[in-house]
Amino acid sequence: MKLPKKVKINEVVLRDGLQLEDKVLTVDEKKALFDQLVKADLRTLEFGSFVHPKLVPQMANSGELFELISKNSNQLELIALIPNLKGAKNAKEKGVERLNFVFSASDTHNQQNVQKSTEESLEELKGILIYCEDHGMLVNVSVATTFGCPFEGEVSKGRIEWILEQLVPLNVETITLADTTGMANPQQVYDLVSEMTTKFPEQSFNLHFHNTRGMGLANMLGAMQAGITSFDASLGGLGGCPFAPGATGNICTEDVVHMLHSMGIETGLSLEKLMAASKTLQQYVGHETPSYVLKAGPYDRKYPVPAKK
Amino acid sequence: MKLPKKVKINEVVLRDGLQLEDKVLTVDEKKALFDQLVKADLRTLEFGSFVHPKLVPQMANSGELFELISKNSNQLELIALIPNLKGAKNAKEKGVERLNFVFSASDTHNQQNVQKSTEESLEELKGILIYCEDHGMLVNVSVATTFGCPFEGEVSKGRIEWILEQLVPLNVETITLADTTGMANPQQVYDLVSEMTTKFPEQSFNLHFHNTRGMGLANMLGAMQAGITSFDASLGGLGGCPFAPGATGNICTEDVVHMLHSMGIETGLSLEKLMAASKTLQQYVGHETPSYVLKAGPYDRKYPVPAKK
Repeated sequence: MKLPKKVKINEVVLRDGLQLEDKVLTVDEKKALFDQLVKADLRTLEFGSFVHPKLVPQMANSGELFELISKNSNQLELIALIPNLKGAKNAKEKGVERLNFVFSASDTHNQQNVQKSTEESLEELKGILIYCEDHGMLVNVSVATTFGCPFEGEVSKGRIEWILEQLVPLNVETITLADTTGMANPQQVYDLVSEMTTKFPEQSFNLHFHNTRGMGLANMLGAMQAGITSFDASLGGLGGCPFAPGATGNICTEDVVHMLHSMGIETGLSLEKLMAASKTLQQYVGHETPSYVLKAGPYDRKYPVPAKK
Repeated sequence: MKLPKKVKINEVVLRDGLQLEDKVLTVDEKKALFDQLVKADLRTLEFGSFVHPKLVPQMANSGELFELISKNSNQLELIALIPNLKGAKNAKEKGVERLNFVFSASDTHNQQNVQKSTEESLEELKGILIYCEDHGMLVNVSVATTFGCPFEGEVSKGRIEWILEQLVPLNVETITLADTTGMANPQQVYDLVSEMTTKFPEQSFNLHFHNTRGMGLANMLGAMQAGITSFDASLGGLGGCPFAPGATGNICTEDVVHMLHSMGIETGLSLEKLMAASKTLQQYVGHETPSYVLKAGPYDRKYPVPAKK
């Protein structure tokens, strides 16, 4: 089994993780979580989004949060999700330098999410890229519903190829292939990713999985075998798209890091400090999270032998 | 990614699945569950165990259950777990023809489980095999804690090899390598299984995973890539060893079958009927189970597009 020696984790709990929570975290709570994540040595974090505050109130304080966390953040990549040019401009106003533009491979989901066809979003991206180049901002592009759409079902390989044929020449930093509602399976991931990385060998790819049907870590294994070394993950396994029915949590950062470390794959992260941050997260959101390792402890946890009765 | 075309599932919910439950299911409840499992086309089922009823009261009615389910069971493999020769004799008395003898690769866990060293259990197995040959009974052998022990930690590859060198010449039907408390990772599974199947090419192997740390399906993927086509799984993801601290559920039958079917791998089982049985199981045990697919529905479930506001 051919696996990478090192994997990069992009922590998305402050954005994807919190956007489905009933409780809206205060900017101070988010800042405290952020500090714990940085202590665990996370260096790439999606901290929020610039979307309409009525649609996603959980993210309304993203700009305020950025003002707090961007001090002394030289070593960090702080990324804001944007759905359109207006979001890019709002992010720019707050001084954000890294953006994640999201649109969907499926027209129906894209209409639900941003009231545009996939093609219209691709057109909008071109304007965003011009704006960002003018203002020295870097752009990641996420292709939601790459592995399936909750409304349309299957998304064909041909459609993903067609999207990438337009995206790749635009020279974006990274392209994230996202399994927005956890429909992917490991074989599909391996096949699609292998084909796309072969077809576009110079393009940097990141993968985004949800654990909706329990296959999140298996899908990650499939992606790593296809050569992927960069993944989104969300502390505690929180997450989900507000405009995708049936959406549940992202793959859980501490479970991901635990699996990688147990296989001898480096992440540069502290599992112990991630677990501490994950406990804080549970307190803030006010419920148990889907994290496995937080419940069971790491694989090398030893129990005392019970005394004889 | 090289995967098998067909996989066999051994359903263990009636044994491993129920033995950690607070509520002891009646023989009628077990029979009703069994009937639903058979309707889902399961043909190999571990239905109970012949252990001391004081130690595992949940299994005390296993003999009674066998009397009910063994009528018209020509096409079925009905397996009882036994920890020792006494268990084999008790099973024989009830007319059971297939046994699963379990011992642990780790001495400390085996002492906790059956108050014997691993070597002593291997000796006992020889007596059991003679008894079973005399009485026309077939024996599977499960090696618990193959991938790690909750008391000792790592179990060396050398120790598993030493155990298999003694087991394989005994010509048992199948050897189950069991990750009793979910300590395995996919790389470890792939490496160990590849090596053991290469060293013992004629031996039939089955794998048994728990999802304690969320890696159950990823471990299964690793095992399939190493050529394994037979797995234990437990409806609803229930399960755990009463003598292993931190033990949680087995890999969940419907999640396993869902993953396999989504990858085009045949199981001969009906996912729909498994999910129906899993709903019944939740009613009987009186709590939600860790099943993912029961919550989210299968990957090809389509949602209606919301009306425009």
